[in-house]
Amino acid sequence: MAVRKGNLMSVRDDVKVLDATLRDGGLCNNFRFTDDFVRTLYKTNIKSGVDYMEFGYKADPDLFNVEEYGPWKFCREEDLRAIVGENISDMKIAVMADVGRCNFRRDFLPKSESVIDMVRVACYIHQIPAALEMIEYFHELGYETTCNIMAVSQAGGYQIEEALAMLAESSVDVIYLVDSYGAFYPENASDMALMYIKAVEEAGKKIGFHAHNNQNLAFANTIDTLSRGVSYLDATVQGMGRGAGNCALELLLGFLKNPKYNLYSVLTFIEKYMIPLRESGVVWGFDLQYMFTGQLNRHPREAMAFTSQKRGDYCEFYKELLDHE
Amino acid sequence: MAVRKGNLMSVRDDVKVLDATLRDGGLCNNFRFTDDFVRTLYKTNIKSGVDYMEFGYKADPDLFNVEEYGPWKFCREEDLRAIVGENISDMKIAVMADVGRCNFRRDFLPKSESVIDMVRVACYIHQIPAALEMIEYFHELGYETTCNIMAVSQAGGYQIEEALAMLAESSVDVIYLVDSYGAFYPENASDMALMYIKAVEEAGKKIGFHAHNNQNLAFANTIDTLSRGVSYLDATVQGMGRGAGNCALELLLGFLKNPKYNLYSVLTFIEKYMIPLRESGVVWGFDLQYMFTGQLNRHPREAMAFTSQKRGDYCEFYKELLDHE
Repeated sequence: MAVRKGNLMSVRDDVKVLDATLRDGGLCNNFRFTDDFVRTLYKTNIKSGVDYMEFGYKADPDLFNVEEYGPWKFCREEDLRAIVGENISDMKIAVMADVGRCNFRRDFLPKSESVIDMVRVACYIHQIPAALEMIEYFHELGYETTCNIMAVSQAGGYQIEEALAMLAESSVDVIYLVDSYGAFYPENASDMALMYIKAVEEAGKKIGFHAHNNQNLAFANTIDTLSRGVSYLDATVQGMGRGAGNCALELLLGFLKNPKYNLYSVLTFIEKYMIPLRESGVVWGFDLQYMFTGQLNRHPREAMAFTSQKRGDYCEFYKELLDHE
Repeated sequence: MAVRKGNLMSVRDDVKVLDATLRDGGLCNNFRFTDDFVRTLYKTNIKSGVDYMEFGYKADPDLFNVEEYGPWKFCREEDLRAIVGENISDMKIAVMADVGRCNFRRDFLPKSESVIDMVRVACYIHQIPAALEMIEYFHELGYETTCNIMAVSQAGGYQIEEALAMLAESSVDVIYLVDSYGAFYPENASDMALMYIKAVEEAGKKIGFHAHNNQNLAFANTIDTLSRGVSYLDATVQGMGRGAGNCALELLLGFLKNPKYNLYSVLTFIEKYMIPLRESGVVWGFDLQYMFTGQLNRHPREAMAFTSQKRGDYCEFYKELLDHE
């Protein structure tokens, strides 16, 4: 096994924390956050030392009914500016662009005219060529770029190696290891992270990690991959995200030793905004139904249906899942 | 870093799962479980392949008012037999004996007259001589024994090495690494586990791990120490245990590859007994107040008070904790 990079007391300048609360959390409430919530989260992240804040998706309004979603499904420039102005802070602004779900040639301004700093291109492994086209386009426009390859726990090792080789030759800045199904144990996650690092570090690319909490391992996997050399770490406040949610920002900030990170503002934000949001009926977080799909390395869609139907017959649901294997 | 013992697909015959729901969980409700709950949990554990079930403490009724606690604070032989009869199953019965809180020479029968198989002796590091006296006594009576050294995240390395050397020369069967404050990250937990193993494996002792979930790492730390060679793994149903609770039995059974372990019965038990128990007002599990004491490597007593007072001012509480550092 490889040596760790740094130790539990060291500060690594390559580490960047990305708050994805609005983007992954937005999947829990169709991106219907109040402006007050978004503005306060923006200020909170700045005070907490967060390096990047992801505001949402740049989805194509021709594909999605804008009436059904809050503004952060689309991240229009004017909506972003209504919150961040010119973003005079040190924190950078990120948005996500899904392959096949955005009109990127129409909907992105040149970086010089936008407050967006980074575009994260999300794709499945078979969509890498399409992702590369977008990455090169965004690079030309002047943005930092990432490629977030989803669902790799179901992809073959050969496919992943091919994808990484293609990305190593691209203009992409960061390649994300994404545990879409919360199926990784720290041992897998670290082995995968080392494979990603080995494939692209000579090309000067950084690696990121995006966790899901299906087996209550989102934080553990995040700090384990960090210790192997991953630099970009996704987290969300209280782990808010689809299904079982993500790595909790408060756990991560409490772990990192760089004194630029601090917890106070996040705690106040949790008290004033997150607890009321949960009380209003927005649901996310670890529960048995997600544990099952994580253990079985499957998409959580059936678990999400179990949750939305407010079912409590865990044993019956587990048997149903195994019947469908 | 040391090589792992086994891998994610292998079955290790040295691995033993101990369900501590009644003992650590009993700290949440003063051991007031119904007989139906206890009897069903006993049957559930047998069906699930659990190797040891810990029923509670053997506390001294002269020190504790028996009116204030349910029977599993004291684990009288007749109460045990009312549940398990002669325990004709393959699952073994464990109880815990705290140094200084039990009258061990009076309250333990010879093994030949008891359904108890294993006595777990819990102590702080400075109580090792007292623990050794108890261990040798229990060994003479015919019991399997463990020594669970608590709060080692605050003990000096030299003290721990001394304690392990003394235990290596004793009759003890298993030595537990106990993360009382939920302060360990997987990296610490594994380093500690390797230190324990190195100190006592030549003497033929096994190592156990008992996690607390203050930083949502109880399961992660358990499987990480397992991969380094720890054999005895404590868990509780739904992680029920003092404060932030323990490693969840369902996560652990879902992880282990030995086909003797299975989830179905535990899931049914959760539906029928654990969910109603929570709904009745018994409180445990991860929350921010426990995260703070875990991050600060402190006893959770202030966090438990915060919980019982139903406070929600996390930021203020965090500041109070730091003021008391």
